[in-house]
Amino acid sequence: MQIGMVGLGRMGANMAARLRERGGIEVHGFDPAEAARASASALGVSVHGSLDELVHALEAPRVVWLMVPAALTSQLVDELGSLLAPDDVVVDGGNGFYRDDVTHAATLAARGIHHLDVGTSGGVWGRERGYCLMIGGDPDVFARLEPAFAALAPGVDAAPRTRADVAVGPEEQGYLLCGPHGAGHFVKMVHNGIEYGLMAAFAEGFSILEHANAGSVALAADAETAPMREPDAYRYELDVAKIAELWRRGSVVGSWLLDLAARALADDPHLEQLEGRVADSGEGRWTVLAAIDETVPAPVIASALFARYASRGEDAFANRVLSALRREFGGHEERRP
Amino acid sequence: MQIGMVGLGRMGANMAARLRERGGIEVHGFDPAEAARASASALGVSVHGSLDELVHALEAPRVVWLMVPAALTSQLVDELGSLLAPDDVVVDGGNGFYRDDVTHAATLAARGIHHLDVGTSGGVWGRERGYCLMIGGDPDVFARLEPAFAALAPGVDAAPRTRADVAVGPEEQGYLLCGPHGAGHFVKMVHNGIEYGLMAAFAEGFSILEHANAGSVALAADAETAPMREPDAYRYELDVAKIAELWRRGSVVGSWLLDLAARALADDPHLEQLEGRVADSGEGRWTVLAAIDETVPAPVIASALFARYASRGEDAFANRVLSALRREFGGHEERRP
Amino acid sequence: MQIGMVGLGRMGANMAARLRERGGIEVHGFDPAEAARASASALGVSVHGSLDELVHALEAPRVVWLMVPAALTSQLVDELGSLLAPDDVVVDGGNGFYRDDVTHAATLAARGIHHLDVGTSGGVWGRERGYCLMIGGDPDVFARLEPAFAALAPGVDAAPRTRADVAVGPEEQGYLLCGPHGAGHFVKMVHNGIEYGLMAAFAEGFSILEHANAGSVALAADAETAPMREPDAYRYELDVAKIAELWRRGSVVGSWLLDLAARALADDPHLEQLEGRVADSGEGRWTVLAAIDETVPAPVIASALFARYASRGEDAFANRVLSALRREFGGHEERRP
Amino acid sequence: MQIGMVGLGRMGANMAARLRERGGIEVHGFDPAEAARASASALGVSVHGSLDELVHALEAPRVVWLMVPAALTSQLVDELGSLLAPDDVVVDGGNGFYRDDVTHAATLAARGIHHLDVGTSGGVWGRERGYCLMIGGDPDVFARLEPAFAALAPGVDAAPRTRADVAVGPEEQGYLLCGPHGAGHFVKMVHNGIEYGLMAAFAEGFSILEHANAGSVALAADAETAPMREPDAYRYELDVAKIAELWRRGSVVGSWLLDLAARALADDPHLEQLEGRVADSGEGRWTVLAAIDETVPAPVIASALFARYASRGEDAFANRVLSALRREFGGHEERRP
Repeated sequence: MQIGMVGLGRMGANMAARLRERGGIEVHGFDPAEAARASASALGVSVHGSLDELVHALEAPRVVWLMVPAALTSQLVDELGSLLAPDDVVVDGGNGFYRDDVTHAATLAARGIHHLDVGTSGGVWGRERGYCLMIGGDPDVFARLEPAFAALAPGVDAAPRTRADVAVGPEEQGYLLCGPHGAGHFVKMVHNGIEYGLMAAFAEGFSILEHANAGSVALAADAETAPMREPDAYRYELDVAKIAELWRRGSVVGSWLLDLAARALADDPHLEQLEGRVADSGEGRWTVLAAIDETVPAPVIASALFARYASRGEDAFANRVLSALRREFGGHEERRP
Repeated sequence: MQIGMVGLGRMGANMAARLRERGGIEVHGFDPAEAARASASALGVSVHGSLDELVHALEAPRVVWLMVPAALTSQLVDELGSLLAPDDVVVDGGNGFYRDDVTHAATLAARGIHHLDVGTSGGVWGRERGYCLMIGGDPDVFARLEPAFAALAPGVDAAPRTRADVAVGPEEQGYLLCGPHGAGHFVKMVHNGIEYGLMAAFAEGFSILEHANAGSVALAADAETAPMREPDAYRYELDVAKIAELWRRGSVVGSWLLDLAARALADDPHLEQLEGRVADSGEGRWTVLAAIDETVPAPVIASALFARYASRGEDAFANRVLSALRREFGGHEERRP
Repeated sequence: MQIGMVGLGRMGANMAARLRERGGIEVHGFDPAEAARASASALGVSVHGSLDELVHALEAPRVVWLMVPAALTSQLVDELGSLLAPDDVVVDGGNGFYRDDVTHAATLAARGIHHLDVGTSGGVWGRERGYCLMIGGDPDVFARLEPAFAALAPGVDAAPRTRADVAVGPEEQGYLLCGPHGAGHFVKMVHNGIEYGLMAAFAEGFSILEHANAGSVALAADAETAPMREPDAYRYELDVAKIAELWRRGSVVGSWLLDLAARALADDPHLEQLEGRVADSGEGRWTVLAAIDETVPAPVIASALFARYASRGEDAFANRVLSALRREFGGHEERRP
Repeated sequence: MQIGMVGLGRMGANMAARLRERGGIEVHGFDPAEAARASASALGVSVHGSLDELVHALEAPRVVWLMVPAALTSQLVDELGSLLAPDDVVVDGGNGFYRDDVTHAATLAARGIHHLDVGTSGGVWGRERGYCLMIGGDPDVFARLEPAFAALAPGVDAAPRTRADVAVGPEEQGYLLCGPHGAGHFVKMVHNGIEYGLMAAFAEGFSILEHANAGSVALAADAETAPMREPDAYRYELDVAKIAELWRRGSVVGSWLLDLAARALADDPHLEQLEGRVADSGEGRWTVLAAIDETVPAPVIASALFARYASRGEDAFANRVLSALRREFGGHEERRP
């Protein structure tokens, strides 16, 4: 089996390596950045200098797998529509918006080319741990690529089985055809929305631990600032890094995100090397939009999204409105830090 | 009638003036700050240099009205317990925590002194518009002070009557005995909690208007930042100040807070003279605590409170946790502004 | 001046009446429901049995004003595109999505017909109080209809002027050209989003007051239910209806929504005649979508929207997931009411 | 080593068994319920019919470990204060409020008795997986009980080590002295607060998946209900149970809670056997209270808590207020299901 990987960044290059190592799959690759091509080449990927070259290096029926930022996908799909032949397959493995998959699939189908959307989770650890693959498209095309999915996925042993009395399904190996076009990215979108909520829950909790000594901070008594009523209740100096480590064993909040938090806190116990301006790459927004459209309440995921916005200062105008109103009705002047 | 006003700041001095002007009440006053005493004196208040002097200037049975920051009240109640005589009344008109009223009332009752808690809304405009008074304590003591409450309150004409077929109750004049000790401050606490929510709703809405041109801001296409899917939908340059003015007439959001927002925006259309670090003076916190204790969901008021905390940077550690997790699982480096 | 009103329900009929009474404007009307036509006729509207008849009853250049549910607008615009002539004007006064205005305006412009979107606030009270009009479209067309807007709007006396030293602008009368096509409905959308937040803040606050006696409700001591730690702090029996009335005079939360709440509570102090299944008609959803697109945090408005969803039971599956998880990790069985 | 276990329910009995099996510790037990005593006896616990008997069966210095609902702890501490002798230890392993630990420790210290608070996570699975122990109190007393903690904890192999180059600390085994009295329950409280957020994130996400077919549900077009703008985007019939299973392998949301969700969904794919009335046992409330006191924003945990309240119908009055306001301003009648 051959696969052409477009985009040889963090994700693409590692996936190419795993396809080769675990699946014995021959991977050709293209990336406009020479450094990315060089790194991938060192991992055993046959690299090419253009999309056109990549396509021509593959035997038909071809599989071209995109691992690129969502903003670039539509143009690549158009180009591939010209370069590929009927019965070839385009796999979109990036974090695309699921509705675009339907459009892309239709564009390609007009030329007899297949499309699969493959939401991919695993991050920089995926080469070692395997990738979780959420797939949308036609069952026939899915079946054709199943060896590649199986090579990328972690496999059944990655987690204890839930039920021993049934045959191992693909979902137990770490890949699943979730439904028709877009279903893979839809499920990945919601996965990331949940991830926003999980991350925020940990972030809030660790922050409450970090400030458990708030009672030891002196506060002025004036009409602008609420005095702490019971400062003696907040005089703990907690070791947040050790607590993160502790919770990894036996607690209800045990999770891969906690494992990662423990790593980060072990290196930098107060995270002083970070600024806390938190990016969001679309999936959280789309999850909340979907919740709104479906009339499903999603206050936790929405709060997590808005906290990221606020972390980047996007609450500035709203806060100035609050300060303005306080000044207007109560004569309260802003207290500068 | 005589009243001794302790605390001659923004609130105390204006209330003293209104008591004198509308109620013909003789007001004596004390404030440790000489400037405050001088201002109050200019308003017709007989000022005194100590609490002791103030108490001795009043004829028994005395009424001493506290308009001081909540942090100072307990000590004043203790001092007044020593200075006052049985049947005197202490009125706590500040933004105290309602549970303290119960304690204060018990302390004073042990000496035969009465206590009323009087949650007071109206801000710097109260002298002209009147004050809304939410009162807790014994009906007899309330009745004794009713002329003072009537002088401070706006009166029935301040709003169209809801029902014409019933006698005008005190609540229609703008004061009400809400219940026993603490009930006044409890109601004031919830009032302010609602105020937090109202203010935040306006702040969010004005911010959405202010950023209605977001589609005209260029964004880089990369994997870290979600590109705006439909920038053409956000190219409005709206005049927020005019919109605030517009809504004051006939719309569902018409309110005093909107009147104040229109004033502030008329003076400084983008509120550039403010930083947006928003204080909170306790009432919002207590409202959420009460909601939690009562098992009443209060997501809006809680969100409004937390947004104020975040406006002061108190979300910093949590945000750093998010950045750390993104770096750990996805190799995402923080994007500095 | 003549206006053809399409949709003679609560809003359309009252607006027609006000146009006639205040503006001396001749109003023709159409509604498919005979009862609606009859009611409107009694208000002085010349009613017609079809859209076609309505159009032919008007002299060119015509003004056709739509007051219909958003779901019906697109079809009506298409029909009017066929029936109207160049230089006629279609006014969309319903709660439409602002992006549809751009489409509708383009459809009509292809035939030389003008379009204005007019977000309209005022509800069933508008005939008496006037309507607040948020308008999007071309200045020339706006100017042509200004007499109608002025007749519908409340006028400058509806609120005290913010600044006396400037000429009265249209926004001070209660109507404003906010920007190009869609700007009116965009502003109306945000207005309603704010309204969601304001309503929720009052709802939460009144609920905290209503449950101020929570400490007097006996609770079983078991591992499933958190016991109330300080029941004595929650033994107030508050008169919520009187408190709503009280706050209407002099308080910071004074507002038209509070006036309405006081009316509702005066009639039914515990609101026992209602079920609390709260509809949402789109504007709240769109406001949150806009906030997400603009990267503006809107936690309060989003919480208010989700609370409405939950009021209709749309949180059922999520809650069952919570119950399932509690059972799985802790053996907690659901407690049935 | 001997331990006296008070409370032989789900947690106490399993912990007693693990102490015996893994630590070779002799466990005596007391529970007022005869059935609980019989079950524990079958697990090798020497059971006693009264607290007094239990105490007398232990050799001094004694260790009495409480695994009882928080509401019962204070009384038990008082009784144990009378029954125990200087240098004995009371361990509070329940979900107590951390401030009570300080009181209980002081009560016992007055008689020379020691106190440790031991927040315990692990649920019904702990006997097999081990318990995560968050401990507060004096280092000497902690050291004395370390063999018991080590027996209960999962041990270092329960998770891959974060750093290989340092000696294994107790936190890597699954127990930690977090700080002085109360620190254990403080950390457990925040742990559970995070758990609320994690659970809610999964619950919301699964609900969005479950309703991914929302576009296939017909909706009436009227002014009360927002029509779905793009129903074709929501026509996926997703298998939520399989997706939960899928995410357990390689994805970022991998966690023990996800393992449990997969189990629950495998048994009952639409969770039809549950009602979704979700209890809360205090820890979530206390976490939000702590966040408020510390001025740390916690919108996600607060939202999760309020969603539980709402699941039990505690949003009813607030929702009726919303319905009342909609009726007042817009004449909207409630739509009954």
